[in-house]
Amino acid sequence: MEIAILLYDRFTALDCMGPYEILSRIPGARLRFVAKKAGPVTADTGMLSVVAEASLADVAAPDILLIPGGPGDEDAAADAEIVDWVRRVHESSKWTISVCTGALILGAAGVLRGLDATTHWASADKLATFGAHYTEQRVLRCGKVITAAGVSAGIDMALTLAAIEVGDDFAKTMQLAIEYDPQPPFDCGSPRKAPPHIVELLRAMLG
Amino acid sequence: MEIAILLYDRFTALDCMGPYEILSRIPGARLRFVAKKAGPVTADTGMLSVVAEASLADVAAPDILLIPGGPGDEDAAADAEIVDWVRRVHESSKWTISVCTGALILGAAGVLRGLDATTHWASADKLATFGAHYTEQRVLRCGKVITAAGVSAGIDMALTLAAIEVGDDFAKTMQLAIEYDPQPPFDCGSPRKAPPHIVELLRAMLG
Repeated sequence: MEIAILLYDRFTALDCMGPYEILSRIPGARLRFVAKKAGPVTADTGMLSVVAEASLADVAAPDILLIPGGPGDEDAAADAEIVDWVRRVHESSKWTISVCTGALILGAAGVLRGLDATTHWASADKLATFGAHYTEQRVLRCGKVITAAGVSAGIDMALTLAAIEVGDDFAKTMQLAIEYDPQPPFDCGSPRKAPPHIVELLRAMLG
Repeated sequence: MEIAILLYDRFTALDCMGPYEILSRIPGARLRFVAKKAGPVTADTGMLSVVAEASLADVAAPDILLIPGGPGDEDAAADAEIVDWVRRVHESSKWTISVCTGALILGAAGVLRGLDATTHWASADKLATFGAHYTEQRVLRCGKVITAAGVSAGIDMALTLAAIEVGDDFAKTMQLAIEYDPQPPFDCGSPRKAPPHIVELLRAMLG
């Protein structure tokens, strides 16, 4: 099984790395990080570079295509080379999946037209532009397209996909392998749960 | 605030990337990935390389030192150059922290002698070798040393440290930014919760 994770300037690393940690361990999987050009790609913080092993041209028909989000999403969604590649790969993919605002890149490629989809809560209103119906869910499957909410939701999505693709026992083994027994120190990981001043602060920061 | 995350051959990426995503956003933080030599370092799957921006020699006295785990832990713990650097950096660090079996590298550097500490559940019995007392906790603070359980526990640790270092509002903002409102599809992220056959399967896989 071929898995491709798209990298682009100012992607958010955890969007990729949660799913990578699980999907790369699917038996027989060959996972590649892919970008316009092979080589290092810098994440949104400017403090991390991840190596794209392959260029878009090198990767024609992965079984799973994963698009992360990040502040570079708009530039990526406006890049014809990236968007054309996403559209083409989606035609033959078994699964097309996004984390966070990666959904907006799927949207720009026309993948979400008429579908229910999710994204980072602060970008929810942008999905309509692409003909998608925002649905407040952490992981949302619509046919072969799975979208996840912000950043860390990719972990839940990857476990869900691993269960569908390989089986519950495999997904459970992965969950135990990464000791995913979450105990966040606060209960404020969604705008419904966070104090209003935190939601407003972050909304202002994210612009 | 200077933050250094150690990379070594066959590290586990998510051990780094959870904490990175949060700690890099501490106001004024300069976070660097560090390895014996600057340049790409390959993770345990062989399917991902992360660029170490700096060599050990370049980074003398970070405020926060983070050591990830991974199947390469034993080789790293046997590498005098790495272990000496960890020991030296720990002398002046404000916080010395590990995720997963990164604790065994701290142990080899003598950092955990006489301390309570945690690590990946499957490596718990190795901590005693280094004079540490294994304690079954997801995030464990003992003075300026914080150890976290396996892989994904680094996210909970980083939020905890962000709250101590910057304040609860900052940590909450980060939790909301990464939409960390976990909804794993199964409840089997610890050996106490997972079905026994899954625990045994994984124990065999991890050797």
